[in-house]
Amino acid sequence: MDEFALIDALKTRFGSAALSDRMPVGIGDDSSVNILPPGHELVSSIDTLVAGTHFPAEAPGRLVGYRAMMVSLSDLAAMGADPLFVLIALILPDDQSDWALEFASGAAEAALATRTHIAGGNLTRGPLSASISVHGSLPSSTAVKRSSAKPGDTVYVSGHLGGAAAALRGDLKDAVLNERYWRPKARLDLSTVLRLTATAAIDISDGLVQDLGHVLRASGLACDLRSKDIPVFPGASLADALYGGDDYELCFTLPPSDHPARQRGHTSWESLGIPIFPIGEVTAGSGITIDGQPPPRTGYRHFV
Amino acid sequence: MDEFALIDALKTRFGSAALSDRMPVGIGDDSSVNILPPGHELVSSIDTLVAGTHFPAEAPGRLVGYRAMMVSLSDLAAMGADPLFVLIALILPDDQSDWALEFASGAAEAALATRTHIAGGNLTRGPLSASISVHGSLPSSTAVKRSSAKPGDTVYVSGHLGGAAAALRGDLKDAVLNERYWRPKARLDLSTVLRLTATAAIDISDGLVQDLGHVLRASGLACDLRSKDIPVFPGASLADALYGGDDYELCFTLPPSDHPARQRGHTSWESLGIPIFPIGEVTAGSGITIDGQPPPRTGYRHFV
Repeated sequence: MDEFALIDALKTRFGSAALSDRMPVGIGDDSSVNILPPGHELVSSIDTLVAGTHFPAEAPGRLVGYRAMMVSLSDLAAMGADPLFVLIALILPDDQSDWALEFASGAAEAALATRTHIAGGNLTRGPLSASISVHGSLPSSTAVKRSSAKPGDTVYVSGHLGGAAAALRGDLKDAVLNERYWRPKARLDLSTVLRLTATAAIDISDGLVQDLGHVLRASGLACDLRSKDIPVFPGASLADALYGGDDYELCFTLPPSDHPARQRGHTSWESLGIPIFPIGEVTAGSGITIDGQPPPRTGYRHFV
Repeated sequence: MDEFALIDALKTRFGSAALSDRMPVGIGDDSSVNILPPGHELVSSIDTLVAGTHFPAEAPGRLVGYRAMMVSLSDLAAMGADPLFVLIALILPDDQSDWALEFASGAAEAALATRTHIAGGNLTRGPLSASISVHGSLPSSTAVKRSSAKPGDTVYVSGHLGGAAAALRGDLKDAVLNERYWRPKARLDLSTVLRLTATAAIDISDGLVQDLGHVLRASGLACDLRSKDIPVFPGASLADALYGGDDYELCFTLPPSDHPARQRGHTSWESLGIPIFPIGEVTAGSGITIDGQPPPRTGYRHFV
């Protein structure tokens, strides 16, 4: 298919996900134009999935498109931001136009599920990969950084961990692989409460120990995790939960005054319907221990 | 080099290009946070350069980094936007850490030259490519679209065309190849005057005839180009200027009231020091003719 014909067909697949009343210019011009809510700052991140590295080259386009969107959007959730729009850069081998259309359907499904719009992209020939830049907003000065955890904070995680790793290894049913690995849900429903209450946050893409390690290093602090409190996904191992990536749950720290059990009113965690679990306390020092012992390893290293 | 060590080294190469007083959160968190000027809209685009398709795999990283930035930023100039920041997604084969550092130096040079800052990125293993998402701003409702040219407008181009194509073919000196192909200058200096005066604009990445064709199609109009008025780069052919890509000059339309010769005051084109050339008039109808004849071809097609 000709480049411009394929772009038109992709736009059709995006459907209403490519439209927004806050986007005066969308797909089809040199750039898109988007309007931020007044008093908000722009929150931006970019992520890449490469065939053969992050997904099998024969994986269905629809699954890759959905997952690529959620993986990227997860970085907005980890800042406490609400999503606005994405730009999708697709590198496509010859004769993969049909795959690209399926990718677009999956991306559109994720966009609609998260109230994100697809503002534009780029299409070029080469070895299969997708880079998605994601953009959201939050009220000025409310971003939840990695570097601002405080001694005395409690470390929490959303949801259960290790399901994606165990499913990828083949230890769980295909339905679990589909839900936990292929269809992660960016925890954007937590954005508001995170920016109102959390001192620090990160999304768990490379494993709890490694990703919490980034928070502790950036904050100059330490944490001892209680293994009995780690919410292990049914059928996964504790090691999957500690070191397995791809879950895209959030790990965050709450000050004592904001512990869910003590909360009142509009920041109630229970009302969100997303389970969260306290797994340890932040203390002075550096690094992570588990039940008082240093962990034997960290997590997924892209370049090792 | 380990992933996190390489990210630190890249950040060092970016230097002051990775800092801005309008960026409360930069490289090293889940997302970057940027502040837009009040009353402005956000203008965003993404572009990809793939080794083997857009540049030789053995090309120096510094040149690829510089060019990738300018190619992407050119899409902001074509909207009349001022640049704010970029996100860089690099897919890197094994053992190319040194190349990545050179890429970063070239990207930083382009960032400093255009007062753009580098807000973040992503680094992963795979076949060499770089996707850069670029973000700028302009006062609300001043974006220069492709679709709003009007009958009676004059079509202009900035600078001389065909130099990159002729140089790539080996017909010009290496110094020209370096300047016109490897070191295009995104015409961001034209952004202000474009959004004040132009009815439509596009950057010339795939050749004048093809790119002006996009403007005419989007606007539902026609244009007859005068071949004698096309500003051909010294040593290039008229065909290079009409069909050769990679120049990253701008093509735009001005209404009769805004022709440079009739202008007064702050929108003076002369004061910008960038030559612009009238090459034809927009009329009712559809498509492009050259001296009254249909062109024999269009320009670079990525997917043909």
